[in-house]
Amino acid sequence: GSSTPSVLVGDGDTEEAEDFTSSSHCTELSRRQNEQRKQGLFCDVTLAFSSGAATGNVQSCEFSAHRSVLAAATDYFTPLLGGQFSESLSGRVEMKEWSAELGPDPETVESVIQYMYTGEIRVSTCNVHEVLELADRFLLLHLKEFCGEFLKKKLSLANCVAVHSLAHMYTLDQLALRAADMIRRNFHKVIQDEEFYTLPFHLVRDWLSDAEITVDAEEVLFEAVVKWVQRNTEQRGRYFEELFRLLRLPQIKPTYLTRVVKNEALVAANEACLRLVSDAVEGHAIRCENLKSADLEFWS
Amino acid sequence: GSSTPSVLVGDGDTEEAEDFTSSSHCTELSRRQNEQRKQGLFCDVTLAFSSGAATGNVQSCEFSAHRSVLAAATDYFTPLLGGQFSESLSGRVEMKEWSAELGPDPETVESVIQYMYTGEIRVSTCNVHEVLELADRFLLLHLKEFCGEFLKKKLSLANCVAVHSLAHMYTLDQLALRAADMIRRNFHKVIQDEEFYTLPFHLVRDWLSDAEITVDAEEVLFEAVVKWVQRNTEQRGRYFEELFRLLRLPQIKPTYLTRVVKNEALVAANEACLRLVSDAVEGHAIRCENLKSADLEFWS
Repeated sequence: GSSTPSVLVGDGDTEEAEDFTSSSHCTELSRRQNEQRKQGLFCDVTLAFSSGAATGNVQSCEFSAHRSVLAAATDYFTPLLGGQFSESLSGRVEMKEWSAELGPDPETVESVIQYMYTGEIRVSTCNVHEVLELADRFLLLHLKEFCGEFLKKKLSLANCVAVHSLAHMYTLDQLALRAADMIRRNFHKVIQDEEFYTLPFHLVRDWLSDAEITVDAEEVLFEAVVKWVQRNTEQRGRYFEELFRLLRLPQIKPTYLTRVVKNEALVAANEACLRLVSDAVEGHAIRCENLKSADLEFWS
Repeated sequence: GSSTPSVLVGDGDTEEAEDFTSSSHCTELSRRQNEQRKQGLFCDVTLAFSSGAATGNVQSCEFSAHRSVLAAATDYFTPLLGGQFSESLSGRVEMKEWSAELGPDPETVESVIQYMYTGEIRVSTCNVHEVLELADRFLLLHLKEFCGEFLKKKLSLANCVAVHSLAHMYTLDQLALRAADMIRRNFHKVIQDEEFYTLPFHLVRDWLSDAEITVDAEEVLFEAVVKWVQRNTEQRGRYFEELFRLLRLPQIKPTYLTRVVKNEALVAANEACLRLVSDAVEGHAIRCENLKSADLEFWS
């Protein structure tokens, strides 16, 4: 080969050095590793997203990737791929237990994997709930935070129940507080919305226990409880009594208590509920008698 | 699992979307992949740097890395690692033919590999020649350019020959021009420097052919040629005649030609060189005679 020139000597006593940073290097590196992934180049792991369904007809959607990139993007994969798990040996990771019955939408999964490679993603009102679910699962904190900010901007009366559910599910505390506040101030409208009747028991219970919900009359809360249970009596029937106990029956008029509440099948079938109705009616009667005698004394 | 909230609906007709870029993502990804490399996590290729020596005692220095990152950092590795080369199958790439007899300094190799991962490197007067050699080999254009800029700033009379050699070797044209200019303007000093005598034949020939080199007298060029050959007579002896022919002998005084040049062993051993000396001496004699007769005519 050619001869080497001697080592260059600087002018000073100390070694002269300069730090160089290639500004576009990391972005370009990420972009190119993402291209490799799409072409299946140098991939050493397969992510298989399937429904958590117990049925035999399991849908599965597969994505090739690089262990090195996934583990660099999030700590979720490091133990899974680096250790002695079966996933590490087989190079296949099964992703189960998703909120959607058939597992997450493949297009959304692809965009979240792309985010892990490039740090870039497009979040929309259509995909934000699944992006959030994936970001939460994969410990992508920045992305999760962004989804929270995105939802905060999109928060409206029409979606506050859905947004609150998401915020609650993924512990986005600030967003949950803001959505809850909107729900409280508009509870009479919220219970006219179908979304409310898709809520799980624990959230319906929390709302009925909330001292600050605003409604025109206690009657509408009774109707909401009945409607919520009737959406799926088989699953929700067992919660009826607990929810019914949260109603402030003394604030409901005796005529409504005796003609509507008492005759509702869910109440009629439940001893404890019937007793609560009787107690409330009795209370009304006694208060009424006291008022009358006070009235008589006044006019006497 | 938990129930899914319904898809969120935007306020407008069109889907509302927002692009998110996690600003630190790519830098962080690169930093963590580099950490994995140092720990040997998920590595799938070994780079073995060895001397190109034909001796049995081959030194080898090995580095683990990720194919995906190397191929993303430079096109040098893509065909080597992605195709059906033996390197691709074995996961081992031999790096031979280096300017230094024992191969490049391991610390410098490590810093260039780190540059491929992170885009960051410290270049010093001590390592710049090897960084440049590695950057050139691995097609790291930005790094090569930076080395050129670094050397341009460090260019001085003390190192211009070494810098010119590097610039010439790695086709850093701008730097080569600037160093060449400094060499031309200071050629009488340059040939007092040991560095000049380490140059390969083709560069020494180029300099002696250069019409713009500045020296006090042609004699010093003769001495430089002799000194250059004597540094390694066995290898360089065969070039003596070609270099000697580049000297402008008519500009050397007759006394020096007859007493020094003619008696130099390298000249004495070479018929063609001796003839050139004789021709030059003859030329002097004839010119002298003409001058004398002109002189006589003048005074007559």
